[in-house]
Amino acid sequence: MKVSVFRKEHFNAAHRLNNPAWDAETNAKIFGKCNNPNYHGHNYELIVEVAGEVDPNTGYVMDLKILSDLIKTEVLDPFDHKNLNLDTTEFAELIPSAENICIVIYNKLRTHLNPLNDLRITLYETERNYVQYPVK
Amino acid sequence: MKVSVFRKEHFNAAHRLNNPAWDAETNAKIFGKCNNPNYHGHNYELIVEVAGEVDPNTGYVMDLKILSDLIKTEVLDPFDHKNLNLDTTEFAELIPSAENICIVIYNKLRTHLNPLNDLRITLYETERNYVQYPVK
Amino acid sequence: MKVSVFRKEHFNAAHRLNNPAWDAETNAKIFGKCNNPNYHGHNYELIVEVAGEVDPNTGYVMDLKILSDLIKTEVLDPFDHKNLNLDTTEFAELIPSAENICIVIYNKLRTHLNPLNDLRITLYETERNYVQYPVK
Amino acid sequence: MKVSVFRKEHFNAAHRLNNPAWDAETNAKIFGKCNNPNYHGHNYELIVEVAGEVDPNTGYVMDLKILSDLIKTEVLDPFDHKNLNLDTTEFAELIPSAENICIVIYNKLRTHLNPLNDLRITLYETERNYVQYPVK
Amino acid sequence: MKVSVFRKEHFNAAHRLNNPAWDAETNAKIFGKCNNPNYHGHNYELIVEVAGEVDPNTGYVMDLKILSDLIKTEVLDPFDHKNLNLDTTEFAELIPSAENICIVIYNKLRTHLNPLNDLRITLYETERNYVQYPVK
Amino acid sequence: MKVSVFRKEHFNAAHRLNNPAWDAETNAKIFGKCNNPNYHGHNYELIVEVAGEVDPNTGYVMDLKILSDLIKTEVLDPFDHKNLNLDTTEFAELIPSAENICIVIYNKLRTHLNPLNDLRITLYETERNYVQYPVK
Repeated sequence: MKVSVFRKEHFNAAHRLNNPAWDAETNAKIFGKCNNPNYHGHNYELIVEVAGEVDPNTGYVMDLKILSDLIKTEVLDPFDHKNLNLDTTEFAELIPSAENICIVIYNKLRTHLNPLNDLRITLYETERNYVQYPVK
Repeated sequence: MKVSVFRKEHFNAAHRLNNPAWDAETNAKIFGKCNNPNYHGHNYELIVEVAGEVDPNTGYVMDLKILSDLIKTEVLDPFDHKNLNLDTTEFAELIPSAENICIVIYNKLRTHLNPLNDLRITLYETERNYVQYPVK
Repeated sequence: MKVSVFRKEHFNAAHRLNNPAWDAETNAKIFGKCNNPNYHGHNYELIVEVAGEVDPNTGYVMDLKILSDLIKTEVLDPFDHKNLNLDTTEFAELIPSAENICIVIYNKLRTHLNPLNDLRITLYETERNYVQYPVK
Repeated sequence: MKVSVFRKEHFNAAHRLNNPAWDAETNAKIFGKCNNPNYHGHNYELIVEVAGEVDPNTGYVMDLKILSDLIKTEVLDPFDHKNLNLDTTEFAELIPSAENICIVIYNKLRTHLNPLNDLRITLYETERNYVQYPVK
Repeated sequence: MKVSVFRKEHFNAAHRLNNPAWDAETNAKIFGKCNNPNYHGHNYELIVEVAGEVDPNTGYVMDLKILSDLIKTEVLDPFDHKNLNLDTTEFAELIPSAENICIVIYNKLRTHLNPLNDLRITLYETERNYVQYPVK
Repeated sequence: MKVSVFRKEHFNAAHRLNNPAWDAETNAKIFGKCNNPNYHGHNYELIVEVAGEVDPNTGYVMDLKILSDLIKTEVLDPFDHKNLNLDTTEFAELIPSAENICIVIYNKLRTHLNPLNDLRITLYETERNYVQYPVK
């Protein structure tokens, strides 16, 4: 009897989409306003879903306080109020698109969770643009 | 050609997380503020998803007015403005965690729906903490 | 490594639920207020999900600007500020229930997307009533 | 010690913006898509604010159940799932712009409320366009 | 050049509306479901507005981190995950209606803020019922 | 008979809070994470309120399409997907706090609006932190 539990958090960051293998003109054409050399930024809304069996002793899949603390250590501390391109190792050579940020967050959290539990990440870059990994 | 239809409802209730097999100290440690002996409460947001074939005569999977009435009878009437621990039979001996409330609501609605239709329950305890059963 | 990307758009339209094979009394009984002969209307919120592999050159599943433009051409231009029953060919003989609108939008967008990508449509008729196709 | 209490309700309606004193070309130019002869529609979100002294016996400015019932009788029953131009007397000769709907709702509710209480109406035509009367 | 700054916080609590000067029948009639002797509960959304001059050295009316800390000490610590009737001194003899909670929060915060700044409290008991003090 | 009309828009930008008259240590202490030298960013939600008489010919205070176009020219074009400190003249020497951005937007729009109409700006930096000018 598996149930999914969800925890919503948020962080604010600056980023720039740019592929160093391309010249400036190609980057401007492909990434448009997101290629601004001086960066722009977002309020990222993050939803972490953990699916697993309910523990009959607690009625919990997992304590959401523990999940919230884990998200703080693994995601908010390194990414909140940061420039993703300049202030992180994860995006030093990886384009910080919403898709890539979502996969990076998945990988950072996955190693700290019970292997019997499933994990899914949803990341809102704006209210109208968001991504999810893995796909349902 | 199956489509899912969703109906959102809400109810307000008091509850307390406590495992009678444990002593007070253990309960306080495991459940933290949710163990308050005098209860606390929530605005529960409930989303009921029913998946099934579209009836070509109506364009409906099912009439959402009928689904809304069913949710009223089975969920809102027994749970709204109630103390889940004291005023309900369902949680007299079951910890009213969001996970357990979600499964109880699933079971209450399941018996009243067309067996050919699939059912999924999403329950928000707060805007930032929510659960879903069955898992997608 | 498939990721889903989502784009949210909206349109406003008038519609009426009515089955011409039935008499007025039956239509009024089945569709209730939605059968009003003079129409009523909604702010439809539309969420388009496209699932696919992330292109390592861009970090994108697909450029959401291109998806947004496609939704504009295929959905917003024909449906926004329109009477779905009278101003569209799609619903001239099909009941414009949320379920049917959802399937129609799926079919209109499907032919324009990469066949390797999966598509899912979520359509909010009100904040409390919404539908999804295909089912998860 | 005056406090404001707010009650949020909603209704769905079709409407058309058209000034019969103007020719078709002028109406199309001034009202754009909102002039569609076959109507379009909205989910109207309505917020009713009543300001007054707190009754020490109840802790209430007024019972929000009574306010909700009044809004149902005066606003939802005549306007919900209706064509504002064709199905109402209020907009038979008055352009059903958000501004005018807001003033009409104010006038309909004003006569039923305690004259010592202040009233203010906020009406959302879409999530991005809304109006308020009287002005703060 | 006065600007208002707003900080949104939330807390969860149980409460019961009951006037000890009345008999049980009168209380049940006046307060309806809110009179449940075993309590019910809410997710209270709290918005604190502080109006004042902008400090040219910081661009701030006041540091919202300081305001957030003050709200934590004065409101969240005493009220969050509490039974307002049983666990607080403020509502030991005052009916914990939304109106009264709003005024109590105003008074608790007012003494800690710069007297040159104006304060206004908005409190959501549910998404559809909320209150504000002082009145605009 | 004055009515307020509101138009909601949004833009994404990077910024940094820093007072050049102070040394690095003081700036870090006063502005905390918002002082990050590499910038961070936000999705700014902007609400523009215009109050005025309703034109009986249109039922409008003003055409919201015209207001939306004005916001695009005066606010979104210069600020969206920009670094407020580096890419704008307005914040070259003014700290881009939410308060200052709000006043700057007010001044930019004020000169283009009918002097008989009142203007008020609300700016959300995050869902929980926002500002308003002038004060109500």
